[in-house]
Amino acid sequence: MKPVCLVIGAGAGIGGNVAKKFALEGYHAVLCRRSDAEGLERMVGDIEAAGGSASGFILNAIEEGAIEERVAAVQADIGAIEVAVYNLGAQIGNHALADTSYKQFEMGWRLGTFGLFRLAQAVTPGMVERGKGTLLVTSATAAVRGNAGQHSHAAAMAGRRLLCQTLNAEFSSKNVHIAHIIIDGAVDAPDTLGKMLGEEGFQKLREARGMQHDGLLLPEEIADTYFHVAQQHRSAWTFELDMRAFSDTPWWNHG
Amino acid sequence: MKPVCLVIGAGAGIGGNVAKKFALEGYHAVLCRRSDAEGLERMVGDIEAAGGSASGFILNAIEEGAIEERVAAVQADIGAIEVAVYNLGAQIGNHALADTSYKQFEMGWRLGTFGLFRLAQAVTPGMVERGKGTLLVTSATAAVRGNAGQHSHAAAMAGRRLLCQTLNAEFSSKNVHIAHIIIDGAVDAPDTLGKMLGEEGFQKLREARGMQHDGLLLPEEIADTYFHVAQQHRSAWTFELDMRAFSDTPWWNHG
Amino acid sequence: MKPVCLVIGAGAGIGGNVAKKFALEGYHAVLCRRSDAEGLERMVGDIEAAGGSASGFILNAIEEGAIEERVAAVQADIGAIEVAVYNLGAQIGNHALADTSYKQFEMGWRLGTFGLFRLAQAVTPGMVERGKGTLLVTSATAAVRGNAGQHSHAAAMAGRRLLCQTLNAEFSSKNVHIAHIIIDGAVDAPDTLGKMLGEEGFQKLREARGMQHDGLLLPEEIADTYFHVAQQHRSAWTFELDMRAFSDTPWWNHG
Amino acid sequence: MKPVCLVIGAGAGIGGNVAKKFALEGYHAVLCRRSDAEGLERMVGDIEAAGGSASGFILNAIEEGAIEERVAAVQADIGAIEVAVYNLGAQIGNHALADTSYKQFEMGWRLGTFGLFRLAQAVTPGMVERGKGTLLVTSATAAVRGNAGQHSHAAAMAGRRLLCQTLNAEFSSKNVHIAHIIIDGAVDAPDTLGKMLGEEGFQKLREARGMQHDGLLLPEEIADTYFHVAQQHRSAWTFELDMRAFSDTPWWNHG
Repeated sequence: MKPVCLVIGAGAGIGGNVAKKFALEGYHAVLCRRSDAEGLERMVGDIEAAGGSASGFILNAIEEGAIEERVAAVQADIGAIEVAVYNLGAQIGNHALADTSYKQFEMGWRLGTFGLFRLAQAVTPGMVERGKGTLLVTSATAAVRGNAGQHSHAAAMAGRRLLCQTLNAEFSSKNVHIAHIIIDGAVDAPDTLGKMLGEEGFQKLREARGMQHDGLLLPEEIADTYFHVAQQHRSAWTFELDMRAFSDTPWWNHG
Repeated sequence: MKPVCLVIGAGAGIGGNVAKKFALEGYHAVLCRRSDAEGLERMVGDIEAAGGSASGFILNAIEEGAIEERVAAVQADIGAIEVAVYNLGAQIGNHALADTSYKQFEMGWRLGTFGLFRLAQAVTPGMVERGKGTLLVTSATAAVRGNAGQHSHAAAMAGRRLLCQTLNAEFSSKNVHIAHIIIDGAVDAPDTLGKMLGEEGFQKLREARGMQHDGLLLPEEIADTYFHVAQQHRSAWTFELDMRAFSDTPWWNHG
Repeated sequence: MKPVCLVIGAGAGIGGNVAKKFALEGYHAVLCRRSDAEGLERMVGDIEAAGGSASGFILNAIEEGAIEERVAAVQADIGAIEVAVYNLGAQIGNHALADTSYKQFEMGWRLGTFGLFRLAQAVTPGMVERGKGTLLVTSATAAVRGNAGQHSHAAAMAGRRLLCQTLNAEFSSKNVHIAHIIIDGAVDAPDTLGKMLGEEGFQKLREARGMQHDGLLLPEEIADTYFHVAQQHRSAWTFELDMRAFSDTPWWNHG
Repeated sequence: MKPVCLVIGAGAGIGGNVAKKFALEGYHAVLCRRSDAEGLERMVGDIEAAGGSASGFILNAIEEGAIEERVAAVQADIGAIEVAVYNLGAQIGNHALADTSYKQFEMGWRLGTFGLFRLAQAVTPGMVERGKGTLLVTSATAAVRGNAGQHSHAAAMAGRRLLCQTLNAEFSSKNVHIAHIIIDGAVDAPDTLGKMLGEEGFQKLREARGMQHDGLLLPEEIADTYFHVAQQHRSAWTFELDMRAFSDTPWWNHG
């Protein structure tokens, strides 16, 4: 039976590509996303067409019990989750403090921090029991510095980052590998960046970044590093790494 | 009319001492704490006996509207809040992930992150309108690194820290000074540390740290620095500083 | 006999103003700078005219033995050094790697890192013996992130910062207070910034920053915080703090 | 013609294993180390026996011109250096400030910081000209925090880290990939750790870390990640990552 790689947040960007990469390397990929059942089906189909094995589920991570029940069902019906990927973003664009509602701020925390806490509670017992597991957490520049208008996002992602540190402190010696991956730049992902900017804005950005579109982070290339991290020998684990395009500027060198 | 210094979390440790310091330097101090009306009254009395001016209110920061209504009432009844101090802790001790309930984790966020967001929303409009204000935020080691068992606390305080950065990014140029103060050690505060350790444990710690009790951070000395930061000329503001006893080890040198 | 405050790098910016502040608060200030004997004399005269006590010495910190001999002479002739301030900059402007000579890179290290090491070796034995002392270290944005063209400066200042951490780890418990002060912005200092930009450029910057000149860090206001840090009770010491003008952007929010 | 991977500091730990990995993946590895010509020859022989291609040179990096001339000779005689690995340590053990000589402190800088600066000056022109290159820099916990007794080491490694940032700021957009790899733990390397602890101490540590010896970082496993980083697509480069054994504690969780 194939080991399972569960991806929470499997859109057409990082999540979907990570799922595909693991599937092509011998995992059964479980793709969960909030909406677009058709897109989800297409992604599962793509993976299968490429010779991989995958399932897809619509999952609203905010909903009470949604993550917990999905984890339980996957482990009951498909197999042990060896790798879990938390790939939900919490970016809502820039808003002045007065224009950031309590609800938005709380939603940021629910997606950015609490969802990871719930996923970790759901998957770590099995990983500890089996003496093996990996939790890969997609993160963002906002996890390491708060920029103007990012009240909700930065608070949520900072919480995500230090939660990863406390998870690592508890689970690393039990052979559960936690990795906090700082995606420090825009990802070439039609589902998120594309929607945020609109079709035209997205194309403009792609062109402005020049050199075809490799000024943006390409999610299929990011996926290679996710896979590498998950395969690191336990004598040489990476907890945190950053990723950005060669043509981009690191967060510590710009605003 | 005296400018107002509002302290959310005015126990017998940092909060109460900061309130007293500001009161003795010419502010009207407004002390808010969750419980112990008698202790609160005593602190207000102490300040008045020392020649200062103060009011005290019982305030449960978790309650919907509690911070918001207190801020409104203070500004209506007492005067403009020139300095606001957010001094609520969110430490619940060390707990394994499995022993940290969803409720505890959420409570950490409500006290550690969301309460500051609410306070900032309540006090900044007046500060911006008057072209002047200060928001002093007590923080902790857990805001900069996540240690074992600190799932709730570290996630909450990390959120607090980066929220301070986003607040600073928005309000600094409007002459509102945000300061994030990392208290990197145990404070000699009977209300919090004392209760957590019990009377005997607290005395033992005080003795172990030796040299009377200045191995612990003395809250009345911390208060001097809070006051200094609030008085810094706007050409030379400090956003972040750490504080610890000379005999203690910084977080980056120990676990 | 007055305690001595020794300032290495006492130009018309931070160094001179810190010297003056300590002198007016009861220290004997010893001002050391590399050149401009006339300017040095004038600063000593200003301090004395204001009722303070001071001496001035020309000192080329790069020279073998210069710091060591000055420390010895001051302690022999004037008094115990209670506060030492290391205020030498190592900024040489932005240069591509190919345009940064070995000599420049080494000079950066000599001024930025090694000079502090030498000063610390010279002053700490007396401080430990007397059971009391303070070492205030002016630092820069380049100590926490390396920007384009800053090869020499960033390497030197990063070394300065972590050297402060190792000094703190060794001397804090011996009641010697080390503080690393990150000046994160341009200082209104005719001797350094003024010379770098030229008279006209300096005036332009002052005007562009608007609001008279408080978009720049005013060194006399910085000096207040240096003094405060040196007076902190040992139960509540600050090791690191940042400073910038309210109208400026922190390094983590811009390039 | 095979691309060249030049390793400065190719002992039996990280350096030698990285050289071997690259050689087995199709590079010609050039191994440089300060001493032990016999050991060097053996390593070259091992690589060749395994089907790889390699050369070895004794190189004293401290010596004037040694790095520069080796780089020139390699490019003239062997081929273009596509990957350069700077793997020289600067650890001298813990020493009190008074017991750290000026010479030791300077030596730390020469090995820790200046040597990398020299290597970067030597290899980047060719990389920029060819539009492609990778500089992998081994670093240490001391690059991110200064611990007691680490005056020389921490200052040197902090300089190394921020120099990597300035190099990245200048060369990343020219398709030269700089990576700063924080080895946050003891490496199972007989040449360095083994010598520092002595045979007996080294065995004790290996045993204490238990589970055979994978409580130590295994250099052959580290090498896999070095290789992966060097192969990352330029749309998704990592600048900084940490590595430690699963059974070890990250620096931010201990002293």
